[in-house]
Amino acid sequence: MLIQKNMRLLAKFESLFQKRNASKISFIGLGQMGSKMARNLIKKGNTVKVFDVIPEARNSIEGAQPCDSLQQVVEGCDVIITMLPNGRIVKEITLGQRGVLEHLEKGAVLVDCSTIEHQCAVDVNEAVLKRGGKFLDAPVSGGITGAEAGTLTFMVGGDETTVKTVEPTLLQMGQKVYHCGQTGSGQIAKMCNNLILGVTMIGTCEAMNLARKLGLDQKKLTEIVNASTGKSWSSEIYNPVPGILPNVPSSNGYKGGFAVPLMAKDLGIADSAALACGAAVPLTAAALQIYRMMQNHGFEQKDFSSVYEFLKGKNSK
Amino acid sequence: MLIQKNMRLLAKFESLFQKRNASKISFIGLGQMGSKMARNLIKKGNTVKVFDVIPEARNSIEGAQPCDSLQQVVEGCDVIITMLPNGRIVKEITLGQRGVLEHLEKGAVLVDCSTIEHQCAVDVNEAVLKRGGKFLDAPVSGGITGAEAGTLTFMVGGDETTVKTVEPTLLQMGQKVYHCGQTGSGQIAKMCNNLILGVTMIGTCEAMNLARKLGLDQKKLTEIVNASTGKSWSSEIYNPVPGILPNVPSSNGYKGGFAVPLMAKDLGIADSAALACGAAVPLTAAALQIYRMMQNHGFEQKDFSSVYEFLKGKNSK
Amino acid sequence: MLIQKNMRLLAKFESLFQKRNASKISFIGLGQMGSKMARNLIKKGNTVKVFDVIPEARNSIEGAQPCDSLQQVVEGCDVIITMLPNGRIVKEITLGQRGVLEHLEKGAVLVDCSTIEHQCAVDVNEAVLKRGGKFLDAPVSGGITGAEAGTLTFMVGGDETTVKTVEPTLLQMGQKVYHCGQTGSGQIAKMCNNLILGVTMIGTCEAMNLARKLGLDQKKLTEIVNASTGKSWSSEIYNPVPGILPNVPSSNGYKGGFAVPLMAKDLGIADSAALACGAAVPLTAAALQIYRMMQNHGFEQKDFSSVYEFLKGKNSK
Amino acid sequence: MLIQKNMRLLAKFESLFQKRNASKISFIGLGQMGSKMARNLIKKGNTVKVFDVIPEARNSIEGAQPCDSLQQVVEGCDVIITMLPNGRIVKEITLGQRGVLEHLEKGAVLVDCSTIEHQCAVDVNEAVLKRGGKFLDAPVSGGITGAEAGTLTFMVGGDETTVKTVEPTLLQMGQKVYHCGQTGSGQIAKMCNNLILGVTMIGTCEAMNLARKLGLDQKKLTEIVNASTGKSWSSEIYNPVPGILPNVPSSNGYKGGFAVPLMAKDLGIADSAALACGAAVPLTAAALQIYRMMQNHGFEQKDFSSVYEFLKGKNSK
Repeated sequence: MLIQKNMRLLAKFESLFQKRNASKISFIGLGQMGSKMARNLIKKGNTVKVFDVIPEARNSIEGAQPCDSLQQVVEGCDVIITMLPNGRIVKEITLGQRGVLEHLEKGAVLVDCSTIEHQCAVDVNEAVLKRGGKFLDAPVSGGITGAEAGTLTFMVGGDETTVKTVEPTLLQMGQKVYHCGQTGSGQIAKMCNNLILGVTMIGTCEAMNLARKLGLDQKKLTEIVNASTGKSWSSEIYNPVPGILPNVPSSNGYKGGFAVPLMAKDLGIADSAALACGAAVPLTAAALQIYRMMQNHGFEQKDFSSVYEFLKGKNSK
Repeated sequence: MLIQKNMRLLAKFESLFQKRNASKISFIGLGQMGSKMARNLIKKGNTVKVFDVIPEARNSIEGAQPCDSLQQVVEGCDVIITMLPNGRIVKEITLGQRGVLEHLEKGAVLVDCSTIEHQCAVDVNEAVLKRGGKFLDAPVSGGITGAEAGTLTFMVGGDETTVKTVEPTLLQMGQKVYHCGQTGSGQIAKMCNNLILGVTMIGTCEAMNLARKLGLDQKKLTEIVNASTGKSWSSEIYNPVPGILPNVPSSNGYKGGFAVPLMAKDLGIADSAALACGAAVPLTAAALQIYRMMQNHGFEQKDFSSVYEFLKGKNSK
Repeated sequence: MLIQKNMRLLAKFESLFQKRNASKISFIGLGQMGSKMARNLIKKGNTVKVFDVIPEARNSIEGAQPCDSLQQVVEGCDVIITMLPNGRIVKEITLGQRGVLEHLEKGAVLVDCSTIEHQCAVDVNEAVLKRGGKFLDAPVSGGITGAEAGTLTFMVGGDETTVKTVEPTLLQMGQKVYHCGQTGSGQIAKMCNNLILGVTMIGTCEAMNLARKLGLDQKKLTEIVNASTGKSWSSEIYNPVPGILPNVPSSNGYKGGFAVPLMAKDLGIADSAALACGAAVPLTAAALQIYRMMQNHGFEQKDFSSVYEFLKGKNSK
Repeated sequence: MLIQKNMRLLAKFESLFQKRNASKISFIGLGQMGSKMARNLIKKGNTVKVFDVIPEARNSIEGAQPCDSLQQVVEGCDVIITMLPNGRIVKEITLGQRGVLEHLEKGAVLVDCSTIEHQCAVDVNEAVLKRGGKFLDAPVSGGITGAEAGTLTFMVGGDETTVKTVEPTLLQMGQKVYHCGQTGSGQIAKMCNNLILGVTMIGTCEAMNLARKLGLDQKKLTEIVNASTGKSWSSEIYNPVPGILPNVPSSNGYKGGFAVPLMAKDLGIADSAALACGAAVPLTAAALQIYRMMQNHGFEQKDFSSVYEFLKGKNSK
């Protein structure tokens, strides 16, 4: 009885504590990722105003305050979070006519969680600073599952003080916050991580497909690779061969997960950045072309680990 | 006093026990790897006859019985271990005139630890069977350090009974023995693992070099990658950027480790095998070409993680 | 005597005819290409006002009217030709503050001969139209030699009437004018041609280097290829192996010609365009990476056919 | 009347002349190519004994003397021509039990027109020399059409005297004979030519597909490329875009021509040769992988210029 009483007290206290730390947050972009992130903010007791260009989406978040314009969603808010499909749209929403910047309060922080070109983040930051606001680029990893479970990782670029201010809010949607360096470095970190992923996954699929052709058991190969120098997140946590791991896209018809066009998008960002700064990225470029070809051959809805299936081909034994 | 006495007794007992399990072993090929493997067999109390085509090498293994011919080293031995540079030499030493096969005892086991084409292993196996012997392909991973420390991993192909018989001997030179399947599958497993490694390392180097160009701290990137989906043995255990990890080739001028031509050799084996069986291996093929170009541009003595330095280039900021 | 008289008359007549057809032309960008193109326009009797951001360059064209500002060079001119290093600079010079557009006469034609992103041409065209002017993208092929000799080829995008108007002027600097289609299509045509060139040259160099390694005479190979299915401009007119053709860069230490960074620039434009429209360009992407690596390994001043030397390597037999 | 008489006389004379130059020829391998080549030899008046492992094929050549064994076809012949699918089969037919060599007359010439590894040609040559015969490697270009029309090109490796002896016979099946150098160099020449072709075709297809995506007319692009630096046999004679040239596979549903698996075979030979001699062939390797992927995606029956269609993809606009 006493324990139960204390538990109830504790729960109340926790709720109060959350409220005290909760802030008025504006959330723009309620797609697959954004809607789940916004819901987590509401669950943690924050007051959350939401906006999306699609009117129906605005009313889809229970407990949120739906807004009909960027003006309405931005005004009076300290923290504005954006989660949008690409850099062009981020620029349009923030810097465009009747965009976020026109209504931004002095000292408010704009946190962009979209995955975009780092140069684009640098451009938006400059405009936000001129307006008297602050900007962080904060792309995430963890996918839809992580967005739902509130276990995202944030890779953040911007000045340290601003990062510290916003960190508690980010941790209500995720588990880890990496401060990578100045503006844009969050995007650079994400794109560098994802290019390794995109390349490593194809390498792993090539090995698994070669093993299949030569009659080596793929479970055995996975066991050996995971204890050897070929081990990676792709072989250990996200194995591309159906039936080796449960609960991964490969064991579920390559449904869900991180779709081929999204991987192609991220590699395209890395490829362009490399082009602009003169860095050679031979395997990144080759990997991008493979995901590109997959998009044109019926894999545009599948998880990127379906490279395995693409290599196998239709008429392959 | 009593403890010391017991310790001495224990040591004696251990030595006796090792002798009892020790066998008469023949070791052929006393290069960088073979010499260290043979020494570990001697340390564990085995009687080891040794041979190498280079006469001086024959006398370089303390405690071994140097032999002057293949006949001498093979005759009367139950287990013959070969550790040779490539498939052509393995065939020459085993199937050639006055080769191992001509002197092989009925029932003796030939264990080839060289890294060679799996088809080559299949060919040698066939000949050994005809002669009344047994064959295992048992390539290793772990490199020179693992050979010296006796911590190698063996990937073994062949029939289960033979594997079981030889396993204790292999474990005197290593820590793990994987039985991969029928003859040749040890080679297939190794080549599949190494192609992932060769590809993943280049992907990791591309990310690290891109980060450098764009001003992202490489230690920070490594920290993020190792907690994310880009994590691999290459980023975590063998990071290619100087100064991130101690005791890896990159922090030691890319000296030691696994030299570029050896990686090119292994990827060449994988590429040929893929060619022969009709498997598409786009990134393996691209990676092979990069290591090949490195060989022609002054990296032939360096560890394969020097891809990082190759991408950086000479006139790069 | 009579013939000589008639010849003189003819020359006079020709000169008069040229004058009548000559127009007041403005030329902006007096680098390696632009300076030679401007000189040809002067030779043909046109009145040419010239401008370059580098003051010394403005006075380097004999017979031209040097201008000190974009305003001065543009005002009162019917045809403004630009020949600039890249798309960013084209936008700056045309659309920037105190740029070409601010001073453009109604109905004047802006002809951009620079090699830039086709999207950039589309953007500039739109702005020029708004201002009441006309725009053509007209990148050239033929290089410095062609610019000097007046034998350039122009690939032109824009409306037919405008092309017809400007064609005589272009033919004073070149030999051929291709009207490719609407605005931007000149750039698309050039980039498509050059990506074939960049890829084909590397393929040709790989064959020539392989032949060298295997002891096949390269002149013999060239003879066979040029009579077979491997024939291309790269093998026939611009052979990359020293000593096969006279008067090509390969026979002159890879000096002159089309430098590696220029080829890398053009392939980069093609790669970006492909990225943006979702076209797979696997060999273009791979070729770009090779020229990129060459830039980092001491080939940044050499003609792009030096791929042959890059493949050969330093320590190659 | 007189003219007709003379024509008849001339025809008779020509026929007599051919007979005098005709020899007893043995032809082994009566597939798509071989059957047509043998028929041309018969048309020119030679006595031709023929053999194929498939009994029906032996009787399919009108005017030939069908043989039931290698012994029968080889015995008493001065010139033995082989046209076989690959190097393994060439070795089997020539060096195997009851093979060509066992029955070869002293001084007879074995001319292998198959496309095989140059090392394989070197091996067979050695065996033939030991037996007292002579060997030429003489792969052809021109395809099935050229075989039928008697317009093949022969690339020949071997000693000059032997080449001179056999040249008239080869010219009865083709139009050109290139003496490339010592044994194997015919194969090297062919493989070098075909690797350029395989690479150039893909580059051309990438440009054509990119043009399509960006709305540039492909006929216009072809016209420009063929007058510029991107010109090649692939763009001019064998354009991969349907409807640009008549009578090429692309305008006939990619039927006929040189099938994808044959191109993959030739590039595989080049890739292996490069591997063995340490030459870097980055685009050859990448091209091989593309043709390989095509084989696994439903293009195994199509002409290799269908790369265009593969790049386009199924769900491409």
